[in-house]
Amino acid sequence: MAALTSLDELIAALRCLPGVGPKSAQRMAYHLLQHERDGAERLSRALTAALQNLRHCTRCNAFAEREICERCAAPRRDANLLCVVETPADLNMMEQTQLYNGLYYCLMGRIEPLAGVGPRELQIDRLLARAGDGVVQEVILATNFTNEGEATAHYLGELLRARGLKVSRIARGLPVGAELEYADAGTIGQALVERRPL
Amino acid sequence: MAALTSLDELIAALRCLPGVGPKSAQRMAYHLLQHERDGAERLSRALTAALQNLRHCTRCNAFAEREICERCAAPRRDANLLCVVETPADLNMMEQTQLYNGLYYCLMGRIEPLAGVGPRELQIDRLLARAGDGVVQEVILATNFTNEGEATAHYLGELLRARGLKVSRIARGLPVGAELEYADAGTIGQALVERRPL
Repeated sequence: MAALTSLDELIAALRCLPGVGPKSAQRMAYHLLQHERDGAERLSRALTAALQNLRHCTRCNAFAEREICERCAAPRRDANLLCVVETPADLNMMEQTQLYNGLYYCLMGRIEPLAGVGPRELQIDRLLARAGDGVVQEVILATNFTNEGEATAHYLGELLRARGLKVSRIARGLPVGAELEYADAGTIGQALVERRPL
Repeated sequence: MAALTSLDELIAALRCLPGVGPKSAQRMAYHLLQHERDGAERLSRALTAALQNLRHCTRCNAFAEREICERCAAPRRDANLLCVVETPADLNMMEQTQLYNGLYYCLMGRIEPLAGVGPRELQIDRLLARAGDGVVQEVILATNFTNEGEATAHYLGELLRARGLKVSRIARGLPVGAELEYADAGTIGQALVERRPL
């Protein structure tokens, strides 16, 4: 067997990417070396730059290049509203609705006892300090509607209400464009329970 | 919108990986920054090292750190046999059979007219020079059994036979462990046509 150390090391290093197993890593390495040498160089530089430049915004906890990210520093945003999301990807989705102009707090996870993630690991005290700044009036819980996301929302709701804050949860119901015939009974049930007057 | 240049650039750079779209790239970037900072650093270094160190072996055309790879330089290999494969991944699969002890030539692709890849792009003349070194006696065509792989095998077969070389093709048939009931008719048909005396 040939001992191609650089190649073996590249294949091994690619496996740190989520969802990339040995076969994919091999395919990626060959693809980069054969067809994407410029892309590979760019990726190497981007990784180094991102590791150097990015940290967590001290206000919203999402990734930022400065101590306070541009979103948190924006004067036009409504500082009375704080939306709690699990991940930066969720934050992006909220922004894409173009219906929210408040601020955010990104948990960078969810309470997941089976994975050893509790309130301490999530640094929930940082969220409580942020929400208790005297400006925030309503906290909107936008964690996922998974078991873990629901448990996290429930837990945070208790703590935040105890501090005199108004707490809300984004609505459950049928997706836009959905037909009842093809929706699951659980979702229809929730849409029924949470029906709104017209 | 916040202008997170390092993050945006990392997400864009990750898209050079095969099969990685905007959503996956975003997920990968967040994962690396949050959970795999060591892995990201290692990947950055591995990419740079691989780009610097790896080139094509002048004999087999697969990736190598020297002018002639260790496999081609190994004295124990049977230099009378030359197996032609499409990619280094295919070469690895052939090696894993542990049933082949000859040498290889890696096309780094296949004849694919619709993608603009013809004999010239594949540098078929390099293979012909390699196979015509006076030592190689049999060329085993192990391109894939796709339309493009078959066409490539057919084309190479003509050229190599015209040079007085013995040319063979790896066998088609039912996979090991296969049951006829669940195999496709095309494969069963081929297995019937290419039946061997027992």
